[in-house]
Amino acid sequence: MSETAQPARRRTRGGGGAARRAERTAVRFETAPAIRRRIPDLEILDEEALEIIERNAETVLEEIGVNFVDNPGALELWREAGADVRGERVHIPRGLARSLCATAPSQFTQVARDRNKDVEIGGRNLVLAPVYGPPFVRDSEGGRRYATMADFEKFVKLGYMSKWLHHSGGTVCEPTDVPVNKRHLDMLFAHMTLSDKAFMGSVTEPSRAQDSVDMCEVLFGAHFVQQNTCMTSLININSPLTFDSVMMGALEVFARNNQASIISPFIVGGAMAPVSVAGTLAQVLAEVMAGVAYSQLVRKGAPVIFGAFVTSIDMNSGAPTFGTPEAAQITYGAGQLARRLGLPYRSAGSFCGSKLPDAQAAYETANSLNTGLLSGVNFMLHACGWLEGGLVASPEKFVLDADQLGALHHMARGVEMDENAQAMDALREVGPGGHFLGCAHTQANFKTAFWRSEVFDYKPFETWSEEGARDSATLAAVRVDKLLSDYRQPEMDPATHEALRDFVARRKIEIDGRSG
Amino acid sequence: MSETAQPARRRTRGGGGAARRAERTAVRFETAPAIRRRIPDLEILDEEALEIIERNAETVLEEIGVNFVDNPGALELWREAGADVRGERVHIPRGLARSLCATAPSQFTQVARDRNKDVEIGGRNLVLAPVYGPPFVRDSEGGRRYATMADFEKFVKLGYMSKWLHHSGGTVCEPTDVPVNKRHLDMLFAHMTLSDKAFMGSVTEPSRAQDSVDMCEVLFGAHFVQQNTCMTSLININSPLTFDSVMMGALEVFARNNQASIISPFIVGGAMAPVSVAGTLAQVLAEVMAGVAYSQLVRKGAPVIFGAFVTSIDMNSGAPTFGTPEAAQITYGAGQLARRLGLPYRSAGSFCGSKLPDAQAAYETANSLNTGLLSGVNFMLHACGWLEGGLVASPEKFVLDADQLGALHHMARGVEMDENAQAMDALREVGPGGHFLGCAHTQANFKTAFWRSEVFDYKPFETWSEEGARDSATLAAVRVDKLLSDYRQPEMDPATHEALRDFVARRKIEIDGRSG
Repeated sequence: MSETAQPARRRTRGGGGAARRAERTAVRFETAPAIRRRIPDLEILDEEALEIIERNAETVLEEIGVNFVDNPGALELWREAGADVRGERVHIPRGLARSLCATAPSQFTQVARDRNKDVEIGGRNLVLAPVYGPPFVRDSEGGRRYATMADFEKFVKLGYMSKWLHHSGGTVCEPTDVPVNKRHLDMLFAHMTLSDKAFMGSVTEPSRAQDSVDMCEVLFGAHFVQQNTCMTSLININSPLTFDSVMMGALEVFARNNQASIISPFIVGGAMAPVSVAGTLAQVLAEVMAGVAYSQLVRKGAPVIFGAFVTSIDMNSGAPTFGTPEAAQITYGAGQLARRLGLPYRSAGSFCGSKLPDAQAAYETANSLNTGLLSGVNFMLHACGWLEGGLVASPEKFVLDADQLGALHHMARGVEMDENAQAMDALREVGPGGHFLGCAHTQANFKTAFWRSEVFDYKPFETWSEEGARDSATLAAVRVDKLLSDYRQPEMDPATHEALRDFVARRKIEIDGRSG
Repeated sequence: MSETAQPARRRTRGGGGAARRAERTAVRFETAPAIRRRIPDLEILDEEALEIIERNAETVLEEIGVNFVDNPGALELWREAGADVRGERVHIPRGLARSLCATAPSQFTQVARDRNKDVEIGGRNLVLAPVYGPPFVRDSEGGRRYATMADFEKFVKLGYMSKWLHHSGGTVCEPTDVPVNKRHLDMLFAHMTLSDKAFMGSVTEPSRAQDSVDMCEVLFGAHFVQQNTCMTSLININSPLTFDSVMMGALEVFARNNQASIISPFIVGGAMAPVSVAGTLAQVLAEVMAGVAYSQLVRKGAPVIFGAFVTSIDMNSGAPTFGTPEAAQITYGAGQLARRLGLPYRSAGSFCGSKLPDAQAAYETANSLNTGLLSGVNFMLHACGWLEGGLVASPEKFVLDADQLGALHHMARGVEMDENAQAMDALREVGPGGHFLGCAHTQANFKTAFWRSEVFDYKPFETWSEEGARDSATLAAVRVDKLLSDYRQPEMDPATHEALRDFVARRKIEIDGRSG
């Protein structure tokens, strides 16, 4: 591996005495390795159901087809691949999309600036990334308001500090105080410098995807980026069955540069897909197969993820609803379809419709997080921080959810069955009517035996009352403040930092010049 | 079936004109049938692990043994069955307990006063019953205080009104304003007259279990009770490995009278069982096998349920913790063990440690409810209403949880795969870029397509703000008031009502005479 192929942090080790001293004195924050499931997936569809859905998806692709809008290049690629292209409608012959999907890797590594935080996406792994996209922020101090770059940085810091979060994410909120055509630069700069975890690139314009690749080349080295996946970005399909040129343009940039894309239908059931689970699953599979197949037409072997963002709808109000049983069924079913297709799977998250980090939010979120774990999700975007159907990011909800992600880690470990875990000595030592708290086995194992929340209140009622009878939203606000005051920026080679800053400044001038 | 073998409601149909008129004008509240799972169970233990745990449980029974305290009759039964009894310690030879368990039914029917609400316990069914045991109540008006009979009646009414709750439960809270030696009479009277769902008997004294049987004979007819299971009651094991004479005395009364018992270890992991999942499972299995075997010594074929009440512990404070991953693993594992033993399974519930119906409560509860559904639980006690580790029952939490039980019902239905559910016509009709809201398939199916909360707020932010920006605890309080104001007592044959009232009055005088 050449020197430039080394990521920033490794290069720092070869830096001057100041850098070495900084590294020695830096506060370290632990990040757990990605969840490696030692429990089975829940498979709610039988073979017959799966075959019906797969057959229907092929029928959708062949008979109905998909639209690639404003994208003559894509239509040409499809034509060459053997599709029947009529106008912008691409009819994909039965079997073609699936066979094209076969060249996508079933698992890939996304590197992080701290190489100890590289993430393996696929297989039995589950990588957790924070909320993505909210234009608003709600916190206990300021209520609900438009998000700013200061909020964005706060979320990146909280993600960096979270033990259970493996990934820094992307648009953790929309920094509405920075113009749309430049904010991707500030967002990437924040992820690259305030955290050392893996992150996502910009997808709102092909040129911004290119900026993302270019900034990665500054951070990791140009050669390294072409040989390694340094970003996993979110490419939404315009459901039903429509692939717009902005999203496809970004996908093309990422695929050509060996960067990963989540190819993800965005479905509110009953609106963007049929009102039934089986119908939605056929559509999801058709859309993902078309999108993944296209990524492989752009570059064979480009890393991609089978995405499924699916919610149900409240037929009274038309509002999307979250953490519902129908969304769970689709999430389980799509996981089975993704595994049969041999692709990493993205779904679930801290989804909720509630406006506050209250009981509604937590029921909805817990339902979705549990579904995510048990449906075999490999990459969980939005794993913490969602409120109000994704319109709002909340720091309190962020730390409450991130805490629950620890429970997923422990659950996924499965059940130890070695002699120590069998604890027969403890059972013999204590016997009928005894107490296990003091026995040797408990003393030897209690520190690691049980997951423990770092936000919840476990105190007796009297103590809790004396301390102000605080609810969990209030306790979460306390934790947010503590984490932010403990935050220390991970060290970075000053030259790299400066190069990134220069890149951002130069591009902003270029963009202003172009739009001015 | 003889006339007296008919439950009250059927007999009412034969009553006078007034009763018929009352029935015609009575408000009806829908109760969903017990959940019949059309999704698989999650099995987290493999065959090897299950065999190890089963072997260890047999070792515990044989080598360590179990204590039957102050119960010479039980010791005699065990001796006759072939156990090695030394003092109060019963050493059960390998295989004996399991073979005795074989005579317990794998599934049984508990009848309800409204025979349409009979519940099937076992197999692929899940029966939901409310919170059991809290001495305190917390509501939005009065805060936290000792529970009274008025609170008790309120919870019975809420349970009766809940569509998703199949069972009226037992000690929905402890009515502390009635003396301990008489409150079981008032509690049973409330269940029998304020609801028409199935209920539980008293277990705090063998004589109170007998009162429960006697009251059932008044309600259902003596002959009917001996031939039908009219109560399912909660028999806790004094973990580790101890069977006290009060609980066993109640079990004996119920078993002799063909009434069902849940035989349930009560375990805070690390205190009443080893700090490890595998060790706790071996103990749980040993305890349940000993208890079920004993029930079959009392009466072969007596209906029983494999119970597992298991929580973890916060090693910092010693407080029990709920909705944790370790408790979930034990719940999943115990479900597998129960199925291998061929017994109905009781576990999970609306468990939480939080003092308020806030986010902590909801995360913890949702984790446990989901685990309950997917672990194959057949009877879920505490399915709604828990707060503060079971010290507190809360009407607001009751309706929030009961609402979530609807999500379990929908999830358990599994995925419809018929032609209508496949929705290929809808996909063809709408096509790329279209919208499903108006299509024929959506119009035909939207009413039943998605589960919808009856407590949560699905309104737009602006509407929600105008309506007072209420959190879910506040919305739940509104629902509690609405349900209680809508409540109408289910009709009952006046003669039966009077006979029950007379029974309670007579027994109270007898009890006062005995204790005075």
